[in-house]
Amino acid sequence: MTAQASTTGGVETGGGTWRFSADQPLRLDSGAILLPLEIAYKTYGRLNDARTNAVLVCHALTGDQHLASTHPITGKPGWWDLYVGPGRPLDPERHFIICTNVVGGCMGTTGPASVDTKSGEAYGLKFPVITIADMVRAQAMLIDALGIECLFAAVGGSMGGMQVLQWAADYPDKLFSAVCIAGAARHSAQNIAFHEVGRQAIMADPNWCGGAYLAAGVRPDKGLAVARMAAHITYLSESALQRKFGRELQKDGLSWGFDADFQVESYLRHQGASFVDRFDANSYLYITRALDYFDLSAQYGGVLAQAFRKARHVKFCVLSFSSDWLYPTEESRDVVRALNGAGCRASFAEIETDKGHDAFFLADPQLDQTLRGFLAAQAQARGLG
Amino acid sequence: MTAQASTTGGVETGGGTWRFSADQPLRLDSGAILLPLEIAYKTYGRLNDARTNAVLVCHALTGDQHLASTHPITGKPGWWDLYVGPGRPLDPERHFIICTNVVGGCMGTTGPASVDTKSGEAYGLKFPVITIADMVRAQAMLIDALGIECLFAAVGGSMGGMQVLQWAADYPDKLFSAVCIAGAARHSAQNIAFHEVGRQAIMADPNWCGGAYLAAGVRPDKGLAVARMAAHITYLSESALQRKFGRELQKDGLSWGFDADFQVESYLRHQGASFVDRFDANSYLYITRALDYFDLSAQYGGVLAQAFRKARHVKFCVLSFSSDWLYPTEESRDVVRALNGAGCRASFAEIETDKGHDAFFLADPQLDQTLRGFLAAQAQARGLG
Repeated sequence: MTAQASTTGGVETGGGTWRFSADQPLRLDSGAILLPLEIAYKTYGRLNDARTNAVLVCHALTGDQHLASTHPITGKPGWWDLYVGPGRPLDPERHFIICTNVVGGCMGTTGPASVDTKSGEAYGLKFPVITIADMVRAQAMLIDALGIECLFAAVGGSMGGMQVLQWAADYPDKLFSAVCIAGAARHSAQNIAFHEVGRQAIMADPNWCGGAYLAAGVRPDKGLAVARMAAHITYLSESALQRKFGRELQKDGLSWGFDADFQVESYLRHQGASFVDRFDANSYLYITRALDYFDLSAQYGGVLAQAFRKARHVKFCVLSFSSDWLYPTEESRDVVRALNGAGCRASFAEIETDKGHDAFFLADPQLDQTLRGFLAAQAQARGLG
Repeated sequence: MTAQASTTGGVETGGGTWRFSADQPLRLDSGAILLPLEIAYKTYGRLNDARTNAVLVCHALTGDQHLASTHPITGKPGWWDLYVGPGRPLDPERHFIICTNVVGGCMGTTGPASVDTKSGEAYGLKFPVITIADMVRAQAMLIDALGIECLFAAVGGSMGGMQVLQWAADYPDKLFSAVCIAGAARHSAQNIAFHEVGRQAIMADPNWCGGAYLAAGVRPDKGLAVARMAAHITYLSESALQRKFGRELQKDGLSWGFDADFQVESYLRHQGASFVDRFDANSYLYITRALDYFDLSAQYGGVLAQAFRKARHVKFCVLSFSSDWLYPTEESRDVVRALNGAGCRASFAEIETDKGHDAFFLADPQLDQTLRGFLAAQAQARGLG
C-alpha cells in the first residue's frame, strides 16, 4: 500500500512548548550554556503502558515540528503527512510519534529569534553556535521529560538522518531502532560551499543588520530568498528539473528582459518568496552552520565505526535516493560500512527515483514499503504486536 | 607534449577596439539595433597571404579578449594561455588567432556599461537583451572587417562552444573547422535555475539601483559576489572540491561563529570578492540571459540536425569532460548525434578528468593532445603545411 492523499488533522494528540526549568540548561558543544530552554513539539498517537512505542521523527534543515499537522503559517499539510497517519508507515494507532523543532529553529524552540532573558532582546548573533549533537541533546531532554526511557525508533531524512546517527552515537541505550534517510555522516566540501553561498546571500542583505534585524524592525527577505533558491536547486535532480520544467515558458514567446520568462525561474522565485514567510534568516545561518560542522567520525578519532560501537543492539535502516546529488548514495554506503564495521545490524536500500534529495518528502511506493516493512519487523521484535 | 607553464606576453600581435561606422549597426535577434558598435579584440600571430590561417577563439561567460595576454585588471596570464602560444595547440607562429570580447561584455565591446549615445549615460537596463547569435553576428562583422573570408577554425569552450555551434549554423561558408569544448546546444532547466539565482542575487543588492548603479556612483558588489560564488560551485566537480578542500579548516579548530572556518568557504569568498573587481554586474545579467535563451534546435523547428545542414563541409571536433555536471557529456553527445544526422564529419571525445567544467581552463594532457591532433589534421587538409 502506498502513501495516500493528504488527510492532515485528526491524528495530532498533543504537544506545545516544553519549558525546562532554570536547573536544566542545555549544555552546548561550544561550551556555552543555553538557558532557559524551550522545545516546541507535536505528538501523534498515545504512549502505550509499557512506554515502548515512541517514535521520534527528526526534521530537516527547514522543517519543523508540524510533521503531520497543518502548518500554522502556510496552512499546508504537515511536511511528512504522506508517511504519518492512520494506515501509514508511522501510524498514530500503533506508535506514539514525537516531532520537535530543533534548537536554533524558529517555530517555538529556543533559537536566535528567541528573547535572550539577559538582554530582554532577541538573541540575533549572540545566540551560541549549535551542533547536530546539541539538537539531539535537547531532544533527549524532552524524551526524558516525557517519561520515555527508550525510543522504539528514531527516524529522519537529510539533517534528520544526521540527528538519527548522532542519537545512535550519543544515546544508544535509549534507542531500539533507527532509520536514516538521504543522510550522511559528514558534510562534504560541496555541501559546505552551497551553504556558504546561502549565508553570504543573507549577510549581503543590508536588512540583515549584522543579525539584529528584529530590533531594527526589518527582515532580510531578499537575501534569505536567494539563499533558499540556491539551496532548492540542490534538492532536485537535473532530470527532475528538466522533466518538470524543461525550457517551458511562462507566456507565449520571450520577454526580451529579466522577467521570469522560463517556468523554472518563476518556480524558483516562488520557492524563495514563500520561504521567507515561514523562516527566520538567523535560524538559517545557525542551522546550516550546524550541518557544516557535522562530522560524526571526527568526534571519534576519524573512525566512523567507533561512533556506533555501543549501538550493536540497535537495528538500523539506511536509505538513499539514486538521483540525490546533495547527499549521494555513496555517503549512505559509508554509513552502512561503518555500521557493519561496528558489528551493528543494518539494512540498506537505494531507492530508484529521478526526484533527487526531495524524494524524501514525496509519495514513493518503495520508500513507503521499505519504511513499513522495517518498522513492522522491529515492532514484532519489540513485542508491539 | 602537454601544455607548459605560463609565458603570457610576447605573442600578442595586435587588437584594440574596432569602431563600426554609423551605417554598420548590429541588428539583434530581439529586433533592436545596437549603434554604434565597438568590438574589443586581441590578435596573436600573423594572417598569412592566402588569409587561410585565422582562428577565432570564443570566450566563456566571464571571459574576455585577453586570451593569451596579461589581464589589464588582474595582472594574471591570459585565460587560455596554456593552450595558446609558441609550441602550443594554437600557435601564433602558424595561426592568426583572434579573440573578441562578446557583445554585452564589459572589457571594451559595447555592453550595458557603455555610454548610450542617445542619452549620454551608461545603458544599464536600457541595453537590449542579446543572444548567442547576436554575439556571433558581431564577431562575423569583425572578421569581415579584418578581411577574412573564411576562418580556419572557430574554437570555444562552455559559452564559447555554443558560439562555435552558432557559427556553424549561421556562417557555415565562413568556417573550415569547428571545436566545441564542454558546450551544449541549449541551456537546461538546471542551467537556467542557477543563472536565475545569480541574477536575483545581483538584483537583490540595493546598490544595483534597478541597473542604474553607474549613474548612482555605487556598485552591487555583494550581490555580484554571491552570484559568482553560486556559479563557481557549478564549475567544479564534487570530487574536485572534496580532493582540493575536503573539510580542511583555515585555522586550528572551529571558530564557533560565521567566519570562514573551512578552506572551501574562504576559497569561495575569494572567488566572489576578486570577480567583482573585473566584471560588471549588468554584463553578468545580460550574458547569463543570452545563455538561457540559447536553444539552437528551437531556431530550426526543434530539429538540431537542421542547424548544421549547410555545414557538411565543416570538420567538427566535440569534446566534453567526464566530471562536468554543468554541461554534461550527454549534451555534447546530442550535438554529435545532430552533426551525424546532418551528414557532418564530427570527431568526439569525452576527456576523463575529475576537475569538472573548469577542466577547460586547466592543463590537461588529453585536451592538449586532442586539440593539437585535430588542428594539425585540419591544417594539412587546409594546405597550411
